[in-house]
Amino acid sequence: MIQPFTTSTRTIMTPGPVEAYPSVLRAMGTPILGQFDPEFLKIMQEVKEMIKIPFQTKNEEAFAIDGTSRSGLEAALIALIEPGDKVLIPSYGRFAYLLAEIAERARAEVILIEKEWDSVFQQEDIIEAIETHQPKIVAMIHGETANGQMQPLDKIGVFCRENNLFFMVDTVATYGGVEIKVDEWQIDIAIAGSQKCVSVPAGLSLVTYNDRVKEVIEARYQLELGLSKEIRNERHISSNYLDLSQLQRYWSHEPINHHTEATSMIYALHEGLRLLLNEGIQESYERHLLNDQAIKAGIEAMGLTFYGDLTTKMPTVTPIMIPKGIDGENVRDMLLNEFGVEIASSFGPLKGKVWRIGNMGYSSRKENVLHVLGALEAALLYQGANINSGKAVQAALEIYLK
Amino acid sequence: MIQPFTTSTRTIMTPGPVEAYPSVLRAMGTPILGQFDPEFLKIMQEVKEMIKIPFQTKNEEAFAIDGTSRSGLEAALIALIEPGDKVLIPSYGRFAYLLAEIAERARAEVILIEKEWDSVFQQEDIIEAIETHQPKIVAMIHGETANGQMQPLDKIGVFCRENNLFFMVDTVATYGGVEIKVDEWQIDIAIAGSQKCVSVPAGLSLVTYNDRVKEVIEARYQLELGLSKEIRNERHISSNYLDLSQLQRYWSHEPINHHTEATSMIYALHEGLRLLLNEGIQESYERHLLNDQAIKAGIEAMGLTFYGDLTTKMPTVTPIMIPKGIDGENVRDMLLNEFGVEIASSFGPLKGKVWRIGNMGYSSRKENVLHVLGALEAALLYQGANINSGKAVQAALEIYLK
Repeated sequence: MIQPFTTSTRTIMTPGPVEAYPSVLRAMGTPILGQFDPEFLKIMQEVKEMIKIPFQTKNEEAFAIDGTSRSGLEAALIALIEPGDKVLIPSYGRFAYLLAEIAERARAEVILIEKEWDSVFQQEDIIEAIETHQPKIVAMIHGETANGQMQPLDKIGVFCRENNLFFMVDTVATYGGVEIKVDEWQIDIAIAGSQKCVSVPAGLSLVTYNDRVKEVIEARYQLELGLSKEIRNERHISSNYLDLSQLQRYWSHEPINHHTEATSMIYALHEGLRLLLNEGIQESYERHLLNDQAIKAGIEAMGLTFYGDLTTKMPTVTPIMIPKGIDGENVRDMLLNEFGVEIASSFGPLKGKVWRIGNMGYSSRKENVLHVLGALEAALLYQGANINSGKAVQAALEIYLK
Repeated sequence: MIQPFTTSTRTIMTPGPVEAYPSVLRAMGTPILGQFDPEFLKIMQEVKEMIKIPFQTKNEEAFAIDGTSRSGLEAALIALIEPGDKVLIPSYGRFAYLLAEIAERARAEVILIEKEWDSVFQQEDIIEAIETHQPKIVAMIHGETANGQMQPLDKIGVFCRENNLFFMVDTVATYGGVEIKVDEWQIDIAIAGSQKCVSVPAGLSLVTYNDRVKEVIEARYQLELGLSKEIRNERHISSNYLDLSQLQRYWSHEPINHHTEATSMIYALHEGLRLLLNEGIQESYERHLLNDQAIKAGIEAMGLTFYGDLTTKMPTVTPIMIPKGIDGENVRDMLLNEFGVEIASSFGPLKGKVWRIGNMGYSSRKENVLHVLGALEAALLYQGANINSGKAVQAALEIYLK
């Protein structure tokens, strides 16, 4: 007999996946409905409307894709890119390279503008690059999980719109935890995920786009051969699974047959968004900000330093310099094995140099912050680091109880 | 305040999604583990081994893809297809057209061989077509949900291997419910889904492939730009999200960073496969066969007729001719709204003419079979159909109690 799996209970303070709300976990236990059951279609329509609110958009189109965040990034890019199209991707961290990778595979001409990971771009510099390179699409990361930096976007969006370019933004690490103004910032298509500030397990990507994008998607519409032999289109999107022109119809009031919607994940998303919206998105932003202050105060009081420009750090991730002489992975192992706490390492030039503490969704709670600070201090002291003892949790309490 | 969603409890007798095992639903309620938490990696490795058993394969590679069944079909096809490659797709139902659609989008030269949906191909005819067209890849559906037909595959597989072609098979509708012999039939790559005979919610695709396929995938390996700027490859796979060369490494003992695994769905899959394997796959096949006999006996006793050749009908789907003068959708609505029972309509030439009763996974239970037969009889009588009354459930009981 194969035994059921067993798990420990973790305090997850990484930049995702984060702890799911208890009622999200319970919602997934709801028995299955058929994909076209009127009761399930009603749940999908409610999800559609709820997705729009943290995006602050009046877009008609907003829905979930049955895949993790990067499936949404790929769906968005391949919906807009036709072979040879110029895509400008300013990179200040790891995930711009993912956009570049996807765009390249979609046969775009990719123009990658790279900078050090310690800060974001001046918007003017990006605008200048757009003027130089004249791309069709500008694709950017709003909040970069690898370094915790968050890029201001409003001027870039305005410039793109004025010049009739498409502006695509990855808001995976910010959606629900930090203000995003899709309409005001003139973002044409934005993508988020379920596993960060929405506090839903990984497995869904969220997307919204405006009529400018919809027009392109409609012009590329090709219904699949199994449903029609007539609706052929030379400009069709390269993927069937991630074809927004079909997904949009699947999520419409007259759904076409495409994939079989991931019932339980949609239940989870409904509940996660519901809790977020009932808390209030402004209230959620304030909670993330407060917990971020407490994390920063604790880290500072311990005598540790941060990576990168604190003025553009996003509240949902804090990158911390690993002290000299300390093995970052030993500390992470000790946190996990002795304290049940997970924090993250980082990528590329920051690998081995930086830890990241996440502060997202249901994981963004006072008790988690106090626990991670206490555990990190204890693990560092145990491993002989030269830090201030007994200060971190007190500094965080000062923030909470002031 | 937005209210929690509410659902009715359904008896789902469609060809998927089907009812999930109660303990699968409970497993999804397990709190989240991080994607690289050693405890989660252990669960993934157990899943990997369990996936192989219903495929009856000794392949090294077997894993889940975070997307519904068709994401696996696309991943498999784009892993093998390079632009201009010839792909032969014999079609005896709806889903071969999906394979053709995906292959076409992958820029293959698609050779579609079509026949009436009422029966399968003679294997010799397919072998002849392979000889004529000399494709690189032959892609087929094992069990076709649209018409309930199941294609014998053994000779085709042997011929493909002898001639050094790739043989890809969609086993979505059969995996776990009907015997599949990946190694014996010489299938190079096979794909299944979570939402049918594994009794797990939709959202995961299962894949296994042998060393012949692995060699191609390895030759096309391109690690993404965010992790390496060196591992570039002109032959790279067209998608990043569905790139088996990366997914294979993500599921290895030394996982690379790619997507964020869908924790709760993997919990569900672990539990679904565990229950299937603890029942025994032979025992599962026998249960599906017995319930199929009961469904057929009941439908026949009612005086209804079947669509297609019964000798090649798969046990997991039964297509039934909608009696003349009866509106198939009215009957389906009545089943759902009065009896809480869902059965399916069909596609293309069978739309409006055929109902399909599914018989899959946890939904394949005696009480469900008796309930659907009783409900269908009652709905048909209510709508004035000229059928035998009081016979269907008795005929099914004869099967169960003989």
